[in-house]
Amino acid sequence: MRPVAVVGFGQIPVVKQQRATLRQMGATVVQEALTNAGADPGAVGALYASSMLADELQGQKQVAALIADEAGLAGVEALDVRAATAGGAAALRMAWLAVACGAVDLAVAVGVEKMSDGIPTPVLAKALDAQREVPDGATLISQNALLMALYRERYAVPADGLAHFAVNAHANARHNPNALFRNKAITPADVLASRLISPPIRLLDCSPICDGAAAVLLAPLDDSIRYTKAPVRILASSAASDRFRVADRLDPLALEAARRSAQAAYTQASLTPAEIDFYEVHDAFSIMACLLLEAAGFAAPGEGWCLAADGEIRPDGRIPLSTRGGLKARGHPIGATALYQACEIVQQLIGQAGGNQLDNPRVGMMQSVGGAGVTVLTHLFGVAAGG
Amino acid sequence: MRPVAVVGFGQIPVVKQQRATLRQMGATVVQEALTNAGADPGAVGALYASSMLADELQGQKQVAALIADEAGLAGVEALDVRAATAGGAAALRMAWLAVACGAVDLAVAVGVEKMSDGIPTPVLAKALDAQREVPDGATLISQNALLMALYRERYAVPADGLAHFAVNAHANARHNPNALFRNKAITPADVLASRLISPPIRLLDCSPICDGAAAVLLAPLDDSIRYTKAPVRILASSAASDRFRVADRLDPLALEAARRSAQAAYTQASLTPAEIDFYEVHDAFSIMACLLLEAAGFAAPGEGWCLAADGEIRPDGRIPLSTRGGLKARGHPIGATALYQACEIVQQLIGQAGGNQLDNPRVGMMQSVGGAGVTVLTHLFGVAAGG
Repeated sequence: MRPVAVVGFGQIPVVKQQRATLRQMGATVVQEALTNAGADPGAVGALYASSMLADELQGQKQVAALIADEAGLAGVEALDVRAATAGGAAALRMAWLAVACGAVDLAVAVGVEKMSDGIPTPVLAKALDAQREVPDGATLISQNALLMALYRERYAVPADGLAHFAVNAHANARHNPNALFRNKAITPADVLASRLISPPIRLLDCSPICDGAAAVLLAPLDDSIRYTKAPVRILASSAASDRFRVADRLDPLALEAARRSAQAAYTQASLTPAEIDFYEVHDAFSIMACLLLEAAGFAAPGEGWCLAADGEIRPDGRIPLSTRGGLKARGHPIGATALYQACEIVQQLIGQAGGNQLDNPRVGMMQSVGGAGVTVLTHLFGVAAGG
Repeated sequence: MRPVAVVGFGQIPVVKQQRATLRQMGATVVQEALTNAGADPGAVGALYASSMLADELQGQKQVAALIADEAGLAGVEALDVRAATAGGAAALRMAWLAVACGAVDLAVAVGVEKMSDGIPTPVLAKALDAQREVPDGATLISQNALLMALYRERYAVPADGLAHFAVNAHANARHNPNALFRNKAITPADVLASRLISPPIRLLDCSPICDGAAAVLLAPLDDSIRYTKAPVRILASSAASDRFRVADRLDPLALEAARRSAQAAYTQASLTPAEIDFYEVHDAFSIMACLLLEAAGFAAPGEGWCLAADGEIRPDGRIPLSTRGGLKARGHPIGATALYQACEIVQQLIGQAGGNQLDNPRVGMMQSVGGAGVTVLTHLFGVAAGG
């Protein structure tokens, strides 16, 4: 398996409603990633795409081939990869596999979602068990609300205990030109005063519905100098699953897929959580960010919220989270989200994170969650030697 | 890249209406593939699944994780891979990549489709361009009808010229216990007398709507002896795309994605079409089988139908097609189809094709088509040295 690097990336601003079509959004970021790397489109060997909602909201399948065509890449291998809300990370993983194994020398992973084309919430609920959860009225929001209620009760968490995840995300989004909520600093009191959505989840505990697209270009590390002076190496890529139905899990608060996937990634990269400089967490809901911190080994069970309350997730804290705004404030255009995370991690590692730049980070981590913790992918990125 | 072998396979009979649920169908064939290989479920590193219609017909996403859970494999990497009607081959390709690159040592590719849970035809049309083809009334059937009309006109093909593809498929299905049409031999006259669906396509030019599931288990060739005395090596795996919209193609009858993908596969395996012993073609429609024969290099443009009419696609012909019934007569449960093809090729190569057994075949080929020729994957399989 040969080492793989990110050599280019492309993003468009996350907005509530894009005027561009799904295919145009995808093609724009693919072309931007190619331009960013100075890569010849003819050199692209494969394009893997992720969109969770295109089947329903755009009535469109084969999104990868559609984007390839729109981007002028018709002919190239173009396949769709899915893992519900973690789909972008699945596309990234397939691109990594294809380059790592030598099947192709240049691969694009692109994610795109245009949630404004319809009513996304019922479609998002298809990530749950359609036979055994959805008929009971479950949605992704209600399942996260159950987890949040259980967590607060078991660990006697104060009412504002989880609010700091959203506060940090909004603060960090300020300097991210692609973030949806760039000018909306919030306080814990704002979170508690926001509308109840599915008790105890309030509006400001939730990531927003929005439109976006992002892409990264992968090449063998040994070839990366052709494309960039600052290659970022993919140190690890892993995926794991959990029991599908939340009620079937021994402890719903122990995100087993996140734990397994993180452990596998740490092993691949020979790293420990203490060596991770920042973590782009899947903060679709505050409770999910909190549980992931625990599952990935950054906090003991029941103590993830303390890291947030103590300021340790801020850019100057022990484990900076959501450094460009995260799902909460950059936005969570589902199929594109993990690829925004990947772009943001690359920007941090090469010193292009602008007003959000961390101090010389060496290793960045991202986790991507499909459904209510069913599928979790972990990727670790590092400054390449000499990069 | 290490050599990869198919070490186990599982299939259930294709039927018009399964009583089992989607997840049960998937889990059954996964478990059968494991049993077939004598493999410990705990050794499985990844499961990649394909279903084209589950979002709409079952209201279900994350099918891979659902099947993994049902099969007792919760915990394993479980991702969905799609390419519309070629999805099963995309799942196979991802499993091949994962094993070839050393990311996992045992991977399952599973395809499942339960078309009887709803009205599949409009959902199938989502494989076309939702903005530029579907609004004009196009469906997969109508696009294939356009191709068939154009082909017959350009090459002055007699009315029954394409009928022999269906005749051969039905004849071959006779000895396949998993085939939908086991007891339905047909003649060219039957094809011409069958109901007009979308002129000039008649009912017997079309593969049937049905339910099915199939899976293969992949391992490194070097480890395959653990699982089977008759490993079948994957000699090549490739994918290519074409302009998305049929009207945008220079020549709609030249399936460019099929040609590119076949050429890439021949190059990978250092083989020529003359060295292929049999070909599981994507005969969703007779015209598609014919155009694929030409694109893959088995016949010159305009001469694919002659191979059929001359009997050269029969089991004793120059290039046997659809040896177990193909999409036409085994059935075309969309997301599962390519994995049925893979199982059938393995059975041919290890001498387990029963009444359909070819005489000592060494190399089998399959092609899988997404949409109206947009995405095509080619896989070549061969008897492993010593196998």
